[in-house]
Amino acid sequence: MVVTIIGCGLIGGSLAISMKASNMASHVIVVDNKTANAEEAVKLGIANEHLSLEAAVAKSDLVVLAIPVVAAANLLPKVLDLLPESAIVVDMGSTKAGICKSVDTHPKRKQFVAAHPIAGTENSGPSAAFNGLFENKVCIITDKEKSDDEALNQILHLLFHLKMRVIFMSAEEHDRHIAYVSHLSHITSFSLGLTVLDLEKSEKNIFNMAGSGFASTVRLAKSSPEMWAPIFKQNKTYLLEALEAYTNVLNQFKAVIASEDELSSAELMGKANEIRRILEGK
Amino acid sequence: MVVTIIGCGLIGGSLAISMKASNMASHVIVVDNKTANAEEAVKLGIANEHLSLEAAVAKSDLVVLAIPVVAAANLLPKVLDLLPESAIVVDMGSTKAGICKSVDTHPKRKQFVAAHPIAGTENSGPSAAFNGLFENKVCIITDKEKSDDEALNQILHLLFHLKMRVIFMSAEEHDRHIAYVSHLSHITSFSLGLTVLDLEKSEKNIFNMAGSGFASTVRLAKSSPEMWAPIFKQNKTYLLEALEAYTNVLNQFKAVIASEDELSSAELMGKANEIRRILEGK
Repeated sequence: MVVTIIGCGLIGGSLAISMKASNMASHVIVVDNKTANAEEAVKLGIANEHLSLEAAVAKSDLVVLAIPVVAAANLLPKVLDLLPESAIVVDMGSTKAGICKSVDTHPKRKQFVAAHPIAGTENSGPSAAFNGLFENKVCIITDKEKSDDEALNQILHLLFHLKMRVIFMSAEEHDRHIAYVSHLSHITSFSLGLTVLDLEKSEKNIFNMAGSGFASTVRLAKSSPEMWAPIFKQNKTYLLEALEAYTNVLNQFKAVIASEDELSSAELMGKANEIRRILEGK
Repeated sequence: MVVTIIGCGLIGGSLAISMKASNMASHVIVVDNKTANAEEAVKLGIANEHLSLEAAVAKSDLVVLAIPVVAAANLLPKVLDLLPESAIVVDMGSTKAGICKSVDTHPKRKQFVAAHPIAGTENSGPSAAFNGLFENKVCIITDKEKSDDEALNQILHLLFHLKMRVIFMSAEEHDRHIAYVSHLSHITSFSLGLTVLDLEKSEKNIFNMAGSGFASTVRLAKSSPEMWAPIFKQNKTYLLEALEAYTNVLNQFKAVIASEDELSSAELMGKANEIRRILEGK
């Protein structure tokens, strides 16, 4: 199978590596408007060659769109225009309503599968890519009834080989839930990082006094602005709703701390402790 | 050296294990008002015996106070009252001004060293304790001029054996900085956990859709309310200041998201990215 990866960063690169390693891809082409990225991907052995969008799509069986979500929604109609009749295209975006809407009435809509692999690290670029990123992770496929069976089955086959677990929902449902369990935590982490950087004029204090707890909570503040600014834009409505809910909880904490109400403060934390059981799937 | 550990949880227990493993402690006594904890510590081999406070302190060379910070500030004067003339006491609390104030005019103040090891996990209780918790971590000693040289040197010797790096500052300075780089991240994490639990009525969605990023950001929400409620009470002033600063940054994010201002949003994130370099000590 000839695969084109549009956007060879952490996600696109890792997918290319995994597909080559398991012989699912016989030939990988990379398309990246950052020529340096494309060249690095070839140099690192992630892709066999880099081509223009037109040349790449024309000879592909599978096209993977792994670029920031606003750009993906803009580019997808053109990719479908160019797509050979027997080929399919899948995206990897963290928001789904925008991209689905962009091709809702496209004559080749059925050749597109909307996917969101819940996988990533705080690192970016082709050099951050690695085999195994997707293993034992969840992939959400949205609006599956809008893809034809052949396209859907090919993607399910791919995800099976990547050892991913698949769940299905609508694009709107996806965007609402993911605002809470992913996008919100990026904002809280970016905000924590900024607050500490603003207030701690001496970097030495941060370095010396930060424990593993701070490092863990602030990890996502290292994430790529280029990837996340478009996500925040596309998921604006649900994200603002999530931020509102979060601010309310934060205000509850402020109130119990201000009134030195140890009991209510412990009660709030006790409720939050529930997250341990849920994350462990118990 | 005979060592009494008051409060045999993650910190007290790990210290006991490490001191026994390196032969610094010949005999470890545990004092815990939760009899089950004390018995478990003896059963796990963390301590040799458990005794009453009076009996334990009377025969100790070193007393380690590793209980929640409000309780520690209440108990320390009594421990100093009971302390043999040649013995010393050290605390492990995450706030320092309260405990230092509690013995500021005590005749045996010089036998006390105020310490805060920046080490821990989200787990608690004697079974969470392990050898190596303190290795390569920082320990902050505050108000060192209020401890006599002999006491200070013994603690420095102990920290050296634990392979800890020591830094010194005043108790007030400690509490102000730690509010930002530790206490604030606990609140943001507890609040994130609560928000998601409140809004996601279906636990299945959290379990399925949460990636490693969410897990990392919410990790501290698993922390012990019993330990953290007193910390929030004792560090109220600086913590409220930190929360105010954090809320301001959060509001900046809300504003750029609401106005779909991708550039400013990316700019804020770009600034937050700086935390990577600092945490890596570059």
